[in-house]
Amino acid sequence: MKIYLDCIPCFIRQSLDAARHATDDVTIHEKVVRGVLDLANNLDMSQSPPVIGQKIHRLIRELVGVEDPYHGVKQRFNNAALKLYSQMRHLIIESENPLETAVRLAIAGNIIDFGVKSQLQEEELKETINKCFSDVFSGSQIEDFGNAVNEAENILYLADNAGEIVFDRLLIEQLPIEKITVAVKGSPVINDATMQDAEITGLPKIVEVISNGSDAPGTILESCNQSFRNRFDKADLVIAKGQGNYETLSDVNKNIFFILKAKCPVISRNIGCEVGKMILQKTKAFRGEIKNARI
Amino acid sequence: MKIYLDCIPCFIRQSLDAARHATDDVTIHEKVVRGVLDLANNLDMSQSPPVIGQKIHRLIRELVGVEDPYHGVKQRFNNAALKLYSQMRHLIIESENPLETAVRLAIAGNIIDFGVKSQLQEEELKETINKCFSDVFSGSQIEDFGNAVNEAENILYLADNAGEIVFDRLLIEQLPIEKITVAVKGSPVINDATMQDAEITGLPKIVEVISNGSDAPGTILESCNQSFRNRFDKADLVIAKGQGNYETLSDVNKNIFFILKAKCPVISRNIGCEVGKMILQKTKAFRGEIKNARI
Repeated sequence: MKIYLDCIPCFIRQSLDAARHATDDVTIHEKVVRGVLDLANNLDMSQSPPVIGQKIHRLIRELVGVEDPYHGVKQRFNNAALKLYSQMRHLIIESENPLETAVRLAIAGNIIDFGVKSQLQEEELKETINKCFSDVFSGSQIEDFGNAVNEAENILYLADNAGEIVFDRLLIEQLPIEKITVAVKGSPVINDATMQDAEITGLPKIVEVISNGSDAPGTILESCNQSFRNRFDKADLVIAKGQGNYETLSDVNKNIFFILKAKCPVISRNIGCEVGKMILQKTKAFRGEIKNARI
Repeated sequence: MKIYLDCIPCFIRQSLDAARHATDDVTIHEKVVRGVLDLANNLDMSQSPPVIGQKIHRLIRELVGVEDPYHGVKQRFNNAALKLYSQMRHLIIESENPLETAVRLAIAGNIIDFGVKSQLQEEELKETINKCFSDVFSGSQIEDFGNAVNEAENILYLADNAGEIVFDRLLIEQLPIEKITVAVKGSPVINDATMQDAEITGLPKIVEVISNGSDAPGTILESCNQSFRNRFDKADLVIAKGQGNYETLSDVNKNIFFILKAKCPVISRNIGCEVGKMILQKTKAFRGEIKNARI
């Protein structure tokens, strides 16, 4: 998905949020905003939004002089989600359709996104979890997803954010784990999950977890290391969590299922849904809308 | 009030809204956004927001090649407000405190602001009118305002937007009209009222209406013509409608009453109120918080 003009004011708001998150120094806030204005003015609009996101957050880390401004937020939401883990696992196991329940919860967990939201309280996370069971969501999509998972031999699961990765673990536990490799970001960007977050949630104990080697808030293949790209190429099914992965991979010729909550108007318009909707959607290639897609 | 960093993403969103309002040509939308990014990057943050607002809307009119992109919107809301005029006048006359009712309605009319909102329907205007009677609003402020009006000899009323100017007429009818001069913008900017709008509402029939000679979405004194500035200097009381006038005049050493609906978080923070609040407030000078103020 390419950058829309509507993304530009949002980039600037996001960068100001992120700068305020990282430091109270208003001179740095202004430097960040001016730097992002400059980046935005030289923008190639054919790129995906995370390409500029990567540049913005590199600039913020450089200007603030902090390697991981969201470290505290990531810890907070890992802990909040881990506290809910047993209860959510119980809900999944006891439910009529455990796969559907796990997918719904995985989408609810995608609310923990500090790219879109500058503030999030644990209370809102709990409300989103409660709401995810009643939101409209097509059962046939779940069946389709279950079939794709069963038919695949090699599944790559692209995690999104810290905290959310606990919800991913719950979904992964409902999948054939022997086929699955989970990928996290190579180094900190916003509150995206890195290897440290995967370890906190205990994921490496049940499944192989690899780093994608990149600091982009999505999956920009050219920005990932060769080892990740080999795994991506080898996978016959990719499960991609969150908006950043949708933005970077929606036009890729690959069998991908996107799992996300559509939180911004631009993505919602691109998907063709209302803001706030729970999304489980295949790539165009997977739907047979791109010629020579690997299906 | 100076520009806050939070104003910058809002300027860009506003300019994109305005460009879309003026033309469907997406290449022009992009040119406008890039031009505004450039303006924002060279911004003097000690200025008030309407200083850049003036530059942005000049740029839009130049790039789009249309002198008054909001002409249709202004006509629409002049007509909508004129349709409600008799009914609102009746409400004022029949009310226990006609001055308070007229002030409340004048604030409700300030919702017709296409700088802050990119869309407004007549329905929302009617809802705002209905709500304005029950919103919390201190009676002592009205008394203070009434006293100031009675004591003044020369009152300058700075109008804000088209449509809203019908609500201003209703308030002016409750004031000693022989003391009042109304000022409108010198030429089109956003949906701000010009002489044409004043004429449509019949204001010049009951009171003197002058042009301030400026195309700024507020009252930047240096941008106004000498004749307006003389009237401004001569006035012993100024009544200033809307956010743009608050932004440009809140720190001026002058007896000013601001009448507005606080519609954006930055102005609300500056005033010290919640977004959406109805505001009737004196300048610092008028409150005796600036030395040598003319009180």
